[in-house]
Amino acid sequence: MEPDRQAYDRGQTIFSPDGRLYQVEYAREAVSRGSPSVGVRTAEGPVLAARRPLRSPLIEPESVAKIHEIDDHAAVAAAGHAADARRLVEVGREAATGHRIRYDEPIGTDALARAVADHVQEHTQTGGSRPYGTALLVAGTDGGLFEVDPGGTVAGWRAGAIGADAGEVRSVLAEGLEDEPGTLDRGIELALGALAREDSLEPEEVAVATPDAGEPATFSRLSSAEIDRFTPAS
Amino acid sequence: MEPDRQAYDRGQTIFSPDGRLYQVEYAREAVSRGSPSVGVRTAEGPVLAARRPLRSPLIEPESVAKIHEIDDHAAVAAAGHAADARRLVEVGREAATGHRIRYDEPIGTDALARAVADHVQEHTQTGGSRPYGTALLVAGTDGGLFEVDPGGTVAGWRAGAIGADAGEVRSVLAEGLEDEPGTLDRGIELALGALAREDSLEPEEVAVATPDAGEPATFSRLSSAEIDRFTPAS
Amino acid sequence: MEPDRQAYDRGQTIFSPDGRLYQVEYAREAVSRGSPSVGVRTAEGPVLAARRPLRSPLIEPESVAKIHEIDDHAAVAAAGHAADARRLVEVGREAATGHRIRYDEPIGTDALARAVADHVQEHTQTGGSRPYGTALLVAGTDGGLFEVDPGGTVAGWRAGAIGADAGEVRSVLAEGLEDEPGTLDRGIELALGALAREDSLEPEEVAVATPDAGEPATFSRLSSAEIDRFTPAS
Amino acid sequence: MEPDRQAYDRGQTIFSPDGRLYQVEYAREAVSRGSPSVGVRTAEGPVLAARRPLRSPLIEPESVAKIHEIDDHAAVAAAGHAADARRLVEVGREAATGHRIRYDEPIGTDALARAVADHVQEHTQTGGSRPYGTALLVAGTDGGLFEVDPGGTVAGWRAGAIGADAGEVRSVLAEGLEDEPGTLDRGIELALGALAREDSLEPEEVAVATPDAGEPATFSRLSSAEIDRFTPAS
Amino acid sequence: MEPDRQAYDRGQTIFSPDGRLYQVEYAREAVSRGSPSVGVRTAEGPVLAARRPLRSPLIEPESVAKIHEIDDHAAVAAAGHAADARRLVEVGREAATGHRIRYDEPIGTDALARAVADHVQEHTQTGGSRPYGTALLVAGTDGGLFEVDPGGTVAGWRAGAIGADAGEVRSVLAEGLEDEPGTLDRGIELALGALAREDSLEPEEVAVATPDAGEPATFSRLSSAEIDRFTPAS
Amino acid sequence: MEPDRQAYDRGQTIFSPDGRLYQVEYAREAVSRGSPSVGVRTAEGPVLAARRPLRSPLIEPESVAKIHEIDDHAAVAAAGHAADARRLVEVGREAATGHRIRYDEPIGTDALARAVADHVQEHTQTGGSRPYGTALLVAGTDGGLFEVDPGGTVAGWRAGAIGADAGEVRSVLAEGLEDEPGTLDRGIELALGALAREDSLEPEEVAVATPDAGEPATFSRLSSAEIDRFTPAS
Amino acid sequence: MEPDRQAYDRGQTIFSPDGRLYQVEYAREAVSRGSPSVGVRTAEGPVLAARRPLRSPLIEPESVAKIHEIDDHAAVAAAGHAADARRLVEVGREAATGHRIRYDEPIGTDALARAVADHVQEHTQTGGSRPYGTALLVAGTDGGLFEVDPGGTVAGWRAGAIGADAGEVRSVLAEGLEDEPGTLDRGIELALGALAREDSLEPEEVAVATPDAGEPATFSRLSSAEIDRFTPAS
Repeated sequence: MEPDRQAYDRGQTIFSPDGRLYQVEYAREAVSRGSPSVGVRTAEGPVLAARRPLRSPLIEPESVAKIHEIDDHAAVAAAGHAADARRLVEVGREAATGHRIRYDEPIGTDALARAVADHVQEHTQTGGSRPYGTALLVAGTDGGLFEVDPGGTVAGWRAGAIGADAGEVRSVLAEGLEDEPGTLDRGIELALGALAREDSLEPEEVAVATPDAGEPATFSRLSSAEIDRFTPAS
Repeated sequence: MEPDRQAYDRGQTIFSPDGRLYQVEYAREAVSRGSPSVGVRTAEGPVLAARRPLRSPLIEPESVAKIHEIDDHAAVAAAGHAADARRLVEVGREAATGHRIRYDEPIGTDALARAVADHVQEHTQTGGSRPYGTALLVAGTDGGLFEVDPGGTVAGWRAGAIGADAGEVRSVLAEGLEDEPGTLDRGIELALGALAREDSLEPEEVAVATPDAGEPATFSRLSSAEIDRFTPAS
Repeated sequence: MEPDRQAYDRGQTIFSPDGRLYQVEYAREAVSRGSPSVGVRTAEGPVLAARRPLRSPLIEPESVAKIHEIDDHAAVAAAGHAADARRLVEVGREAATGHRIRYDEPIGTDALARAVADHVQEHTQTGGSRPYGTALLVAGTDGGLFEVDPGGTVAGWRAGAIGADAGEVRSVLAEGLEDEPGTLDRGIELALGALAREDSLEPEEVAVATPDAGEPATFSRLSSAEIDRFTPAS
Repeated sequence: MEPDRQAYDRGQTIFSPDGRLYQVEYAREAVSRGSPSVGVRTAEGPVLAARRPLRSPLIEPESVAKIHEIDDHAAVAAAGHAADARRLVEVGREAATGHRIRYDEPIGTDALARAVADHVQEHTQTGGSRPYGTALLVAGTDGGLFEVDPGGTVAGWRAGAIGADAGEVRSVLAEGLEDEPGTLDRGIELALGALAREDSLEPEEVAVATPDAGEPATFSRLSSAEIDRFTPAS
Repeated sequence: MEPDRQAYDRGQTIFSPDGRLYQVEYAREAVSRGSPSVGVRTAEGPVLAARRPLRSPLIEPESVAKIHEIDDHAAVAAAGHAADARRLVEVGREAATGHRIRYDEPIGTDALARAVADHVQEHTQTGGSRPYGTALLVAGTDGGLFEVDPGGTVAGWRAGAIGADAGEVRSVLAEGLEDEPGTLDRGIELALGALAREDSLEPEEVAVATPDAGEPATFSRLSSAEIDRFTPAS
Repeated sequence: MEPDRQAYDRGQTIFSPDGRLYQVEYAREAVSRGSPSVGVRTAEGPVLAARRPLRSPLIEPESVAKIHEIDDHAAVAAAGHAADARRLVEVGREAATGHRIRYDEPIGTDALARAVADHVQEHTQTGGSRPYGTALLVAGTDGGLFEVDPGGTVAGWRAGAIGADAGEVRSVLAEGLEDEPGTLDRGIELALGALAREDSLEPEEVAVATPDAGEPATFSRLSSAEIDRFTPAS
Repeated sequence: MEPDRQAYDRGQTIFSPDGRLYQVEYAREAVSRGSPSVGVRTAEGPVLAARRPLRSPLIEPESVAKIHEIDDHAAVAAAGHAADARRLVEVGREAATGHRIRYDEPIGTDALARAVADHVQEHTQTGGSRPYGTALLVAGTDGGLFEVDPGGTVAGWRAGAIGADAGEVRSVLAEGLEDEPGTLDRGIELALGALAREDSLEPEEVAVATPDAGEPATFSRLSSAEIDRFTPAS
């Protein structure tokens, strides 16, 4: 590494001469070291799917949290530092609860993503804390699907991916995505295919959450059996 | 880079021997890395136009926020760190709301720009935080068009540009601008032409906001179809 | 050690260029310097067992705390800095008491582990404090067995190990573990065998806690005589 | 630059071995990089005049603030960082308002200058903030004309100058100044001549403020037409 | 000293790459520079004995505090920085008083040691303060004898030693200690013998405290005459 | 400058190995760079005299403050940073006012000097602020004449000097001073002679304050005409 | 100076590898640069005597404070930074006043010394402030005579010395001291002899305070005439 860069890359509160925030870029590296998560918008609402990192056969797969419920109507899939993600989930839950109390209705997915992202942005500007080493895909039963990255940027996706090999995963998504949002089943298939790429995937290696058919719809997780139906055969 | 400069460019709270604030200059670099935004004063009020950075065809263009409503009568176009801009928008909204509550009338564009700029200035002087890596064009239905830069400086423009290649964009504006403010349509045309320069622009690559014909006028965004009317043919 | 690493490894609030948090990794080293603790889920609830570091024959073995009661229904086994562990136990007790007061029922083991881990995560992100140099195995009479590591990550284990030679200890556990949870006696045997590995163990060198047969079950420690029954002969 | 100096010039809270405060001296450099302002005492009250830095023909000259009203009876002309100046103006306004509320009379120009200077001094002594990169000429209808510099020093001037080439501007003033205060017109002429030096000045390149003939007198700005009357022919 | 170590040994809030806390280890060095203190459990309660550092014949031996009463029923012997020890004694007294007020009974020695140790631990984790350069032996009339070290670790001892040559002093204790706790007289003899080792000890060079025969027992100090009875002849 | 010194001279809160506080010594350098002030005790009360630094003929000499009234009965003459001195004057006024309110009598000169010096001392010990770059001569109608230096030390003088060439100025004072306090006129003459040394002094270059003949006496300044009477002829 | 030492000697909150606190040791150097003070216990109470540093014949000797009254019944003699000592005197006075209010009796000399020493200790452990560069001899009419050093250590002395050449001064004291406390006159003689050593002492060069014969005794200072009686002839 060149010496100049080292002059600017250890403080989250300083810019480099070319206007970069290195600590935020390094936090993005932390995200890209995490197992990937994907989201796909469908006509029946967005699908979230995440690959679980199982570092030992003694681990209980269910305990490795990659998808978190924010509220009945919204969920997030994370990539990067699991402990950081848990804290952002807490921030999201507080925003959702606060919105329900103030307005007596669920928070929009867009506003939820921005509330979390505002908290993330502060950690890129104010000293005394590092940025969050995690990215989130925020999905809601209102159809919204947004990414929050370690810089606090928000972007809406038709189909998105975060974590390891996100670029390649997105290529698989782009290939399979049609112009119009498809069925939920097609979305799950697409999401799991993108997570697997050339490999096969055991059902316990992934978590999937979708809006259910209820009125109002709530996010619920697929069982292993349900996932098994969609997992690409090896 | 010369060693001497490195002695002074990592603290936002110190001057260099020649009286410069390097961290503020680096924040300006961050602005010049962002996709450009322009503003043009017209006889019917200021036009704001911004180019959206679409890093993937999977992104929903509408979700990439470059123009933000502050209040019915005022809007801003940003360039630079999107997350920083979102926070400044919040500062502007608080100033606008506070003014309405205290004086029962909309805040002037000039005062709005200064309120945001005062907040920006503090981040160039007080430790524990970096400057904002964003510049804003603040426009109001009172006709005002002001730039707030990362140093907290405020300037009024007949037609202005921030972000990547701002100098070149301004040259296009200067060429097309007449001595007297023109029509809104002419202003939109000029703004989009300046953003496009030699290229063509797809309607989803830009956002445009103008005061509408209402009484009082409020800022509203142009639809893709409306933008398409003004987009330079490739 | 390479110079580059030293540029990033002394601040718990900075990322290295490859997205690592060195101070958290060094805290994990502190854990791996501590005498090991293990946990095994059984049909009758999880077993915790820990090896005591007795640095002098003049020390009272009972005074060397490795297993701590959190509440009647939950206990933790620690590895790493004993003083750090004591503070995390306090955090866990506050969470357990708070839960009882608010909901009039014992806190779930999962929620208890996450409450402690949230506290641990803060110490990896916010300045002015080092991370915790300790890992915990959290066990509850609801059958849950979770690890909290110095990064604030939570994982559920069928059988887990922390501290010195945790990898080797886990191998012994994996060999001995059957597909279905076994009896408590089998679990104790397995835990002590894993702690001992090829050595023999004097009863005073270990602490063991299991749920008792009460209704509701509470965690209680095995006496030296009881432990002696299970200790592998040398 | 010699290495020794660098040992002392980056902290506003340390002295160099020869008792200098380098950060304050560098802030003075920032002032001398700004476009100049002048003040001239006359028999009818002090004149303030300032040169506007117009970095583009697209800028609205009126929006480039160099002279600020503090109260009906007092105004300041600034040189240096415009955003810093705006904050000092706010400090001055608070002092003026506070004085009116407590004593029911306008604050003296001397006391106003000292109130602002006390705030400036704090920023040269207390850590966590840089000094102000701005100097002010404070003028009042009581005839007072004072300079506040980045070190917090206050000095009264018969005719003074701050900003770029202040020494040369002062020489022009000294040549033109008579022993007794002259007329307001003569003062304006002298001020504009000093700002122009050998060049010509367009009216929109300068701002001028003087006490008017009212009872009590208030500071008001000259119109472009009025300025034109006094601008030295090229 | 190797350069690598110096990279990690000046901040009490950072770990070294091998998981060590150097500042805590250096604080232990401070303890080992202090004159030694010992404790011995007996059937009649624990004996505390400490060697006084008398750096001048003009000093009043009684004024050199090595043993401190915490409460009627508990006392500590210190080694290391005397001023640090005084502060920990204060912490212990507050814990004892708080316990009496809340529970109307004396605090257990174990809980007292842990309360002091929790305070010590905080000083090894939180910035802005160094660790305590002192170790304590905490003894109570309930028979408990605990060591609190600069890392905040607590250990119970049948017979323990802190300060200079603690290892050698402990060897003397280990040789003389029988399997069952002995008489108080035997304990005093053993403690003084261990402090003296091969030397002789003048009574004013040591302080000794034991529980008295009262009901309830309280800690009291031995007079010079009493100590003289036990001091090994030279 | 030797490297060792630089290791200790940039923090006001650290001692050098030989027990010096370099930042305080450098602040004394700042004092010795300022124009001198003197004080002389007389039978009619202490005389204060100060030389004004007039860096331009355009400056109003009266506006260059070197002598400040603290209260009717006390005044100070300063040397060093004028802005720092102004702040210490404020500290002195608060002490004087506080004393009047509490005790209904003027504060003694000794107590006034100590109150200011206590504030100065804090700035030599506590971080986050530099020492004061100013020394004061504090004089009262009770006859007291005290120096407060940048280290916070207080000393009473029969005749004292601070600022540039204080040693030489003191020599002139020592030569002229008689064993018994002389008349006020003689004191003024002595003070002005010491300030002038071999040079001549224009009346506007000096400020002089003495207790007047009122009952009670108050400090008042000499007019230019009065000073002229005492100024040494060139 | 060896480089290693410099790695540890600039932070009052860090230990060196051998467990030393260099900043405290440097503060002791500051003490040993100050003019000496001595204390001698006598049958009629302790004598305090201090040598005044008179750096100019123009200084009023009485104004150079070395001995300070804490209360009617207690006084301190200081060596080292005079301004630091003044602050410790304030701490002692608050302790004495607080004790009188709470217990309606004078504070014991021992408790007074410890109260001051506790404050001194904090400044050796907590960041953001340097240690005190002063030592005190605390004497009371209850006969107590204690030293408080910059590390916060307290020691009682039969006869003690602080400041320059304290070791040599103590040797003189040790030679002259008898086994039993002597008369007050003998104590004064001994104290002044130790301060003078081979030199002669002018009465104005020393300050002496002793308990008077009142009931209760209070500390009072000896007049020059009284001191003259005891000063060793040259």
